[in-house]
Amino acid sequence: MLPQEELLAIITRAVLAELKEQKRFIPVGVSARHLHISRADLDVLYGPGYQLKKLRPLMAGEFAAEETVTLVGPNMRALEHVRILGPERQQTQVELARTDAVRLGLNPPVRQSGDLAGSAGLVIVGPKGAVVLREGCIIANRHIHMTPADARALGLKDNVYVDVRAVGEKGAVLHQVQVRVHEKFRTELHIDTDDANALGLRCGDRVMVVA
Amino acid sequence: MLPQEELLAIITRAVLAELKEQKRFIPVGVSARHLHISRADLDVLYGPGYQLKKLRPLMAGEFAAEETVTLVGPNMRALEHVRILGPERQQTQVELARTDAVRLGLNPPVRQSGDLAGSAGLVIVGPKGAVVLREGCIIANRHIHMTPADARALGLKDNVYVDVRAVGEKGAVLHQVQVRVHEKFRTELHIDTDDANALGLRCGDRVMVVA
Repeated sequence: MLPQEELLAIITRAVLAELKEQKRFIPVGVSARHLHISRADLDVLYGPGYQLKKLRPLMAGEFAAEETVTLVGPNMRALEHVRILGPERQQTQVELARTDAVRLGLNPPVRQSGDLAGSAGLVIVGPKGAVVLREGCIIANRHIHMTPADARALGLKDNVYVDVRAVGEKGAVLHQVQVRVHEKFRTELHIDTDDANALGLRCGDRVMVVA
Repeated sequence: MLPQEELLAIITRAVLAELKEQKRFIPVGVSARHLHISRADLDVLYGPGYQLKKLRPLMAGEFAAEETVTLVGPNMRALEHVRILGPERQQTQVELARTDAVRLGLNPPVRQSGDLAGSAGLVIVGPKGAVVLREGCIIANRHIHMTPADARALGLKDNVYVDVRAVGEKGAVLHQVQVRVHEKFRTELHIDTDDANALGLRCGDRVMVVA
């Protein structure tokens, strides 16, 4: 027989290890093409002072708006009904999957949100006007929003890169997944529709972080 | 100094190992949505006895035809200009990426070419008529066409499954990649546009077979 303290220590370690393993399985959020909009561009597209209407809440105070736009590429092809996310940002940012970009004749860089210098341009059309966006169109990098508690449990820090494994008949391990840690986040892998459809993933599916 | 025979054996092993490593890097062929057509369905879509015109040759005697069709899903949305591959086959087979399938309101299974029982249906429209396809629409599984010589060099057999690694800012390891060996093939990974765009791959890029 082991002394009681030793037994307790063994059980505690086993439970903590199991909890860490469970924390490796995180839900997937699939980001369809969308845009964030500046106040000035919203004035042009929907009229001066126009207020976005909330369709449904997203993470960290953001929301899907009722309003959509039409995107037109340099080949003059269009993607219709592309949703605006609110609230307004300093700079308009259009996030496409590469499949969307090919359709519009664009070759946007893979970037972290907000890193827009030298990114692709296109035309945005709303009910009240059109904006010729010189830059601001990107393919968002794969990233995980993570709570500080989950990051601690997995031994991860803000801005590190990890791999993510999805099983199934189109299983894969995705590399180059950036971890973003913030107290306003809930833990969720964000991938675009190309990654999701390539792996057969839907919103709410679970994938494994392999750090 | 080693005896000359021993030296030769060492060099030979090193060269063979290097050749095997080089054979691990194979080119990518990206398959955009397309269809194979039966004689009976081609009669309906393009007229009785219609002969497909060769646009460009593909592997093993197949070719991209000049002719295209419009696909219409159960949601009545359409994908236009979808290319026919020739020559005619016993059964019409439509191959979509999941992004295409979502657009048409379909949920086709991931299948090997020719395995069509219980797969998805849709409407195919040509210049002379329309076909209501009850089944035949699939998402093609990831597969490698391989010459017998390359398969031998890599120690692979027809019908085994391997992993494939692609590097880059959207790097990944794809699982569930079926190897198909035939003397008429040239060695090439075939993936759909979702896999290609998720990984940032284009036709002719090289990926690594990790058996």
